[in-house]
Amino acid sequence: MIDLRSDTVTQPTIEMREAMANAEVGDDVFGEDSTINKLEEQVAHLVGKESALFLPTGTMANQVAILTHTQRGDEVILDAESHIVYYEVGAPAMLAGVQLLPVQGLLGRDAVQKLRQAYRPPDIHLPTSRLLCLENTFNRGGGTVMTPEEMKLVFEQAKEFGLSVHLDGARIFNAAVAARCDVKEFTQYCDSVMFSLSKGLCAPVGSMLAGNTDFIARARKYRKALGGGMRQAGILAAAGLVALKMTERLAEDHANAMALAEGLAEIKGLRVELHRVQTNIVLADITAIDTDAQSFVEEMHKRGVKCVAFGPHLVRFVTHKDVSRSDINQAIKVANIVIGSF
Amino acid sequence: MIDLRSDTVTQPTIEMREAMANAEVGDDVFGEDSTINKLEEQVAHLVGKESALFLPTGTMANQVAILTHTQRGDEVILDAESHIVYYEVGAPAMLAGVQLLPVQGLLGRDAVQKLRQAYRPPDIHLPTSRLLCLENTFNRGGGTVMTPEEMKLVFEQAKEFGLSVHLDGARIFNAAVAARCDVKEFTQYCDSVMFSLSKGLCAPVGSMLAGNTDFIARARKYRKALGGGMRQAGILAAAGLVALKMTERLAEDHANAMALAEGLAEIKGLRVELHRVQTNIVLADITAIDTDAQSFVEEMHKRGVKCVAFGPHLVRFVTHKDVSRSDINQAIKVANIVIGSF
Amino acid sequence: MIDLRSDTVTQPTIEMREAMANAEVGDDVFGEDSTINKLEEQVAHLVGKESALFLPTGTMANQVAILTHTQRGDEVILDAESHIVYYEVGAPAMLAGVQLLPVQGLLGRDAVQKLRQAYRPPDIHLPTSRLLCLENTFNRGGGTVMTPEEMKLVFEQAKEFGLSVHLDGARIFNAAVAARCDVKEFTQYCDSVMFSLSKGLCAPVGSMLAGNTDFIARARKYRKALGGGMRQAGILAAAGLVALKMTERLAEDHANAMALAEGLAEIKGLRVELHRVQTNIVLADITAIDTDAQSFVEEMHKRGVKCVAFGPHLVRFVTHKDVSRSDINQAIKVANIVIGSF
Amino acid sequence: MIDLRSDTVTQPTIEMREAMANAEVGDDVFGEDSTINKLEEQVAHLVGKESALFLPTGTMANQVAILTHTQRGDEVILDAESHIVYYEVGAPAMLAGVQLLPVQGLLGRDAVQKLRQAYRPPDIHLPTSRLLCLENTFNRGGGTVMTPEEMKLVFEQAKEFGLSVHLDGARIFNAAVAARCDVKEFTQYCDSVMFSLSKGLCAPVGSMLAGNTDFIARARKYRKALGGGMRQAGILAAAGLVALKMTERLAEDHANAMALAEGLAEIKGLRVELHRVQTNIVLADITAIDTDAQSFVEEMHKRGVKCVAFGPHLVRFVTHKDVSRSDINQAIKVANIVIGSF
Repeated sequence: MIDLRSDTVTQPTIEMREAMANAEVGDDVFGEDSTINKLEEQVAHLVGKESALFLPTGTMANQVAILTHTQRGDEVILDAESHIVYYEVGAPAMLAGVQLLPVQGLLGRDAVQKLRQAYRPPDIHLPTSRLLCLENTFNRGGGTVMTPEEMKLVFEQAKEFGLSVHLDGARIFNAAVAARCDVKEFTQYCDSVMFSLSKGLCAPVGSMLAGNTDFIARARKYRKALGGGMRQAGILAAAGLVALKMTERLAEDHANAMALAEGLAEIKGLRVELHRVQTNIVLADITAIDTDAQSFVEEMHKRGVKCVAFGPHLVRFVTHKDVSRSDINQAIKVANIVIGSF
Repeated sequence: MIDLRSDTVTQPTIEMREAMANAEVGDDVFGEDSTINKLEEQVAHLVGKESALFLPTGTMANQVAILTHTQRGDEVILDAESHIVYYEVGAPAMLAGVQLLPVQGLLGRDAVQKLRQAYRPPDIHLPTSRLLCLENTFNRGGGTVMTPEEMKLVFEQAKEFGLSVHLDGARIFNAAVAARCDVKEFTQYCDSVMFSLSKGLCAPVGSMLAGNTDFIARARKYRKALGGGMRQAGILAAAGLVALKMTERLAEDHANAMALAEGLAEIKGLRVELHRVQTNIVLADITAIDTDAQSFVEEMHKRGVKCVAFGPHLVRFVTHKDVSRSDINQAIKVANIVIGSF
Repeated sequence: MIDLRSDTVTQPTIEMREAMANAEVGDDVFGEDSTINKLEEQVAHLVGKESALFLPTGTMANQVAILTHTQRGDEVILDAESHIVYYEVGAPAMLAGVQLLPVQGLLGRDAVQKLRQAYRPPDIHLPTSRLLCLENTFNRGGGTVMTPEEMKLVFEQAKEFGLSVHLDGARIFNAAVAARCDVKEFTQYCDSVMFSLSKGLCAPVGSMLAGNTDFIARARKYRKALGGGMRQAGILAAAGLVALKMTERLAEDHANAMALAEGLAEIKGLRVELHRVQTNIVLADITAIDTDAQSFVEEMHKRGVKCVAFGPHLVRFVTHKDVSRSDINQAIKVANIVIGSF
Repeated sequence: MIDLRSDTVTQPTIEMREAMANAEVGDDVFGEDSTINKLEEQVAHLVGKESALFLPTGTMANQVAILTHTQRGDEVILDAESHIVYYEVGAPAMLAGVQLLPVQGLLGRDAVQKLRQAYRPPDIHLPTSRLLCLENTFNRGGGTVMTPEEMKLVFEQAKEFGLSVHLDGARIFNAAVAARCDVKEFTQYCDSVMFSLSKGLCAPVGSMLAGNTDFIARARKYRKALGGGMRQAGILAAAGLVALKMTERLAEDHANAMALAEGLAEIKGLRVELHRVQTNIVLADITAIDTDAQSFVEEMHKRGVKCVAFGPHLVRFVTHKDVSRSDINQAIKVANIVIGSF
């Protein structure tokens, strides 16, 4: 089975398994897990922030960031297609008591203009605009990269409005590898950043949140309240330390994604916007075929390729460590057969 | 000063003042205020629901409805321009812990299709879709009416999805008067309805929420939690009982609105979509003039006419009991002068 | 029927009804209701705070105070028998997301010591202690008065701990009248104070919240979010202005309460702690009688006297404007008969 | 250093490290982690419930249980000294919007009577009583065991009141070992149960929540919302499977605790209630010594023994796998020296 559903399915490497087996651990709630401490220090340095925090998932890291940046009753501005709006179970309202203001096209060319239109100045009828959340790379946008220049502009506009800026950078190293620049080129334009050690970096569990020292101290308490204060989590952090050394391998995923995209684009009935294939995600539009995305996905699955429906006529493929170039070639062949079957 | 900012500014009538001065009152938390009880019974009958509840404001009535229909973590589908999204201070997230799913154009021609696109079936990543909120007349739409036929279609689609339907009918009697039909023609297509006794109906304070008996019993407890369980509120209910007899007078506001709209439409530089002037609200677009809405509003104000900015280049006028036809004519004259001044 | 259930049942006076009928009103959401504005100014001056806010109920005023003083996740220290713990429908958790820390005996002689024991210093496992809520007079304590000296001590201890202090002073004028001092003697020892215009002061609806200007500005927004931003509420404020002149009449309620207490204390089987009858509340313990409080209350009711069960063997009587001395005498007679019947 | 602060500090065993290194893993959000699935099945069977769920911490498991059993605005009855009140950062209010009703002595001899007094029947002023939380063994009680017979009585009373019952059984296997009975003897008297794989069972990370199938399905979604939906968490579950085989070793911790208790009890100035030393926790009262608990703890620490202050004059010691009998003897010696130094 070739699994192109998500890079979340990556298996830990042998090096990770060894690191986990031998990790020095302690009670992290007491701040005594040396492996966690080492990971948090390395990450803070890597993304250019004062402090960092290890969390069990990216969802918790995003939610802790929202809790820390806001007061209940505040408003959070973000793209209508962002992960926080789509896939985090309504947590911002339930946990933080904040209202989302989803903006169509915020994570695109006109980010600054969209932000200006969306921002609502103080008024007794309105929730207080407090936080802007960016997402880079942009999952539902097809893994597209917001360049440091674009981030700078929208960050400065946000600051003019007095907003904090959180970056959902679950795949920020994909952005850095694609843009051939240091990840700090991106993270300098946010107050807090989350990224995943799992996904393309292959750790089994864990995400990092980074920001200034006061922010992380308060975030640590919210992490405890959400139930993210684990004990001998150095086991997981040991894999995370290995993951940090694996960022360069994302280039391979990107090359595979482009190969897949080009292969699919040649199939009559499939439409792929090649210029949007910038990292490890490929979105294929099957509107021209007489079927829906769910049926297409099922047919692919029967023939050994897993992918996911991303809309009524949109299918998403994600490349990662456990998918080789020959898997990609096979996936293209299968897509050809499936398309022919409708 | 001619005040066209909102119909919320209406003064109580002499009959209302007399009714308030002489109202028989009791402790409504104990269910012993006979005037409140009478009002709640009349309203339930009027809108064709089993029970009704008196609340201090429409915002509280909407929030109590949301609290009663949902569980924290649920999602509420509503128009991106609806009052609940715009003007209720982020309360759905803060109080009920629910996420809003704002849909562009939901309160328009393609309501059913928009609802189908917005609805999200059960999935572990997604908040549970629980409630659809409609708004009729539609304030930010320019006071437009959703017809009973349109409501029926979207109500049936909502029911197919297992959603409850709440109607923000702050101005539902404007809709009924405009459509020349009984208000029950509209309210039959919702599980709960809120309407205002203030606004065009002129009561000083108060809104009603109606639904089935179990719903209202639970709503009564949420009202208490929000601090809406007042004591001798029969004072206010007495004015409300007078207000219920004033629905026919809304026709006059509608005629005045149309007169205003036609007058403004003739002014070069002002654009008014006359077909959208269906009740007591007029939206004038000043994009063609070299100024912004806020400056326009200020100039009008200096010359004795109050109105409000409704967007960067959009101005709202609302007609009501305390604005006469000659006031309307004067407002048109002033608009002409102000436009000429830019 | 002699109604001793609560002073919330008081009917508005004729002067209040006239004031309401003739009140000058405006749209208070726009800050244009001159009667509201006048009331808020008078109240701020009366209790010695910078600003004040009119709200529909005491529950909303307490909840708005909690919302304004805290961040979600904080802890609020208060007496285990306080109104906020007992009678506000769990609102502090539901609306503000704060945990209550109920302390037995906080509103008693050992207030400072109890506060010291309850206070929890910063720790990652613990919610942040943020707010102390006092209640004066203390309803479930039997209407007892915390003296200004006692308030001073606990206020100073709270400040040492960095806590804000809110005073639920629903009946603070009863305290002032009982202590024969200016209400400011009490309110100087809190950051915010709520009191009721209804209850002994007889207004039909309404409570006031006072504090510094920034606090009230933020409270105003929370009031809007809870649905307490009413329109022509000057109708109610007009009665409130009359209520402010009625504080001296509370002495009569206190005298009646003492007469009732002494009468009840003479009945074999009833126990009344006379030293705790300091204002307008009388608690009678019927443990010695072979029945429960609910049955006792029902028997009283059958014979024309209303009172309420306040525990399995405790009955509460509250005196107020609409109960005369001869009503009190009659109530004592009825109690005698009822006790004899068990 | 002899670490008696908590059994949370236990290091994973070599068998666990090997199991983690070799674990078969998959994406648990997709339900595809076979090790997690195996653990959840074994646990459900072990505690006699239909389903079980793996979570990163006991705090999250308790919070997910509360979220799943309640609606916002509900009330949860629990002991005033329970872990949920004390150490979970105010999460029940912040996340679930529920009010805690802390009851002194609920987890004692008079559990049923205490519950009867605490329970509040339906009333518009009161939050709805929805859930009873028990804790067994009872941490702040000194690791005491509530017997199955005691649990049965309070469970039945709760059911009579229509309450759900959640068991915080972080150390429920300590209870089972102490009572020499199957853990199901306890878990039959609750609707849901949480227990820790870490603590005495030595897994590095993780807790389990068990209940009926519908409950766990809904809990799974709340786990996702809190950010507990991890990916290849089979790594941790592999250690958990080993932990399940280690319950018998808790008897050694209990023997060590009793040895420690007896040793401390002989020291003049230390008071230990030996009958309360039922599992692996020892509380020593130092009131007779001229110092406070914090200073005592620091002196112990300087001499190589870690323990924690549990009140102004109370010190807690917890035995676990990484503390041997000779460590215990050494700890007693050190305590003797420290006591002598004051």
